[in-house]
Amino acid sequence: MSGEVSGRLSGRLSLNQWTTRHWPLPDLVEGCAAAGVSGVGLWREPVSEYGVGRAAKLVREAGLTVTSLCRGGFFQEPDAIEANRRAIDEAAELGAPLLVLVSGGLPPGSRDVDGARQNVADAIAELAPYAGERGVKLGIEPLHPMYASDRCVVSTLGQALDLALPHPPEQVGICVDTYHLWWDPLVWTDLVRAGDAGRIAIFQVADWITPLPEGVLTGRGMLGDGCVELRRFRRAVEAEGYVGPIEVEIFNEELWAMPGAEALALVVERFAEHVA
Amino acid sequence: MSGEVSGRLSGRLSLNQWTTRHWPLPDLVEGCAAAGVSGVGLWREPVSEYGVGRAAKLVREAGLTVTSLCRGGFFQEPDAIEANRRAIDEAAELGAPLLVLVSGGLPPGSRDVDGARQNVADAIAELAPYAGERGVKLGIEPLHPMYASDRCVVSTLGQALDLALPHPPEQVGICVDTYHLWWDPLVWTDLVRAGDAGRIAIFQVADWITPLPEGVLTGRGMLGDGCVELRRFRRAVEAEGYVGPIEVEIFNEELWAMPGAEALALVVERFAEHVA
Repeated sequence: MSGEVSGRLSGRLSLNQWTTRHWPLPDLVEGCAAAGVSGVGLWREPVSEYGVGRAAKLVREAGLTVTSLCRGGFFQEPDAIEANRRAIDEAAELGAPLLVLVSGGLPPGSRDVDGARQNVADAIAELAPYAGERGVKLGIEPLHPMYASDRCVVSTLGQALDLALPHPPEQVGICVDTYHLWWDPLVWTDLVRAGDAGRIAIFQVADWITPLPEGVLTGRGMLGDGCVELRRFRRAVEAEGYVGPIEVEIFNEELWAMPGAEALALVVERFAEHVA
Repeated sequence: MSGEVSGRLSGRLSLNQWTTRHWPLPDLVEGCAAAGVSGVGLWREPVSEYGVGRAAKLVREAGLTVTSLCRGGFFQEPDAIEANRRAIDEAAELGAPLLVLVSGGLPPGSRDVDGARQNVADAIAELAPYAGERGVKLGIEPLHPMYASDRCVVSTLGQALDLALPHPPEQVGICVDTYHLWWDPLVWTDLVRAGDAGRIAIFQVADWITPLPEGVLTGRGMLGDGCVELRRFRRAVEAEGYVGPIEVEIFNEELWAMPGAEALALVVERFAEHVA
């Protein structure tokens, strides 16, 4: 049934807000409810614009669940700790169980990738108890290595997991995003390690397509358009006991040019075909 | 002394032909000799255009050494084995000790990255003895994971090394290119593994800069313009006993727009400043 979720995984599909980034929040919430999509992954900027308390109420009253808040991190910035405390507070207010951390890249002019990675570890150590007290888990997201210098020095699942392990599992987990991880020859063994340690905090899906656009930020593929074994990833996280939300997070200019409801209908259709 | 190599590593700088890709081969050879650059890394297409035997003679008579031939690989193509045998023959005729292998990506429409990787392993097993008989080493080059789908399913040094290890070290080694490997948190331990196994076949340098251009093929940085710890890499391969050529291989539109001699002078200057 096009445009409406059905089947076994119907309760698990979550729409990440950036997939339909130009869709105003009230319309998105209404559209998700109408399509039977019960989860939304929210972003700080549009939520803050709308008002955090107001957004929380809007989502709650529509019967939706906030599956994650994107994003904290960017630890190379001087005020990162304070900014991340605010992000944790916002996640708590929204009822989001998870704050996604994109670690940030190198400070301007720096070549010290080891130092930047140590700085991420230090920042997470400082923030984890604060998050734990507010019922928010920090989700370390490894980003594709093409972002290592300017957005995220955490580039593999194994590395994210090693950063998470020193902390209690209810405070720090890892994010599994197919777009960022599909190429990694170690991803399957690291997924088992992550599962054994109880660290899989969220599962996000997007496909990999080429050629990459300039800046490589907006070239993610619609589910099924690329080369990622999406279903294999879903089965792998499920084999590790993960039964949480499956967030569709696709940054793609063509998708953004579509009306929100139409984009969501396509997401729902492709999810059934390539993920469920 | 600008434009001419001097100092301790003067004998080791090699100009990869693609760094000055529009420079006709006779001019490049003359320019290198004049600048005191004694090594050149050649590419099959321009060499073949000029004539393999003729190119071998030209380089030899100028007193230059061919440090590598780029490239074999692309094992997803149906005639790959035959094409790679020809590439090995050309390397032997040029006196190139090394044929660089860029493995190739996924076959059209395929999502089977494991299968593609197995195919690479099988092809190398078939080609290694043929190469060994002709005095040519195969150098498996891991490319940055942003090329995993369309150019190279071998994405990390560890993976390249695991592909090389089943074969004799005089037949199969690995290529260490800073542009492709700088982001990898495991690269330093895998360099030690590679050194212990006697597998470092060549060391290539380029810097990492952003934003990446559309298609991500032509955005490599001039030495010193980016965030790669070039000198740390050089010291790491040397700590493993590597004392061979250091090839400068930079794909960059601005560099290609410069006259060859000027581009080479810049390479020599930056090499002294950031690598030596």
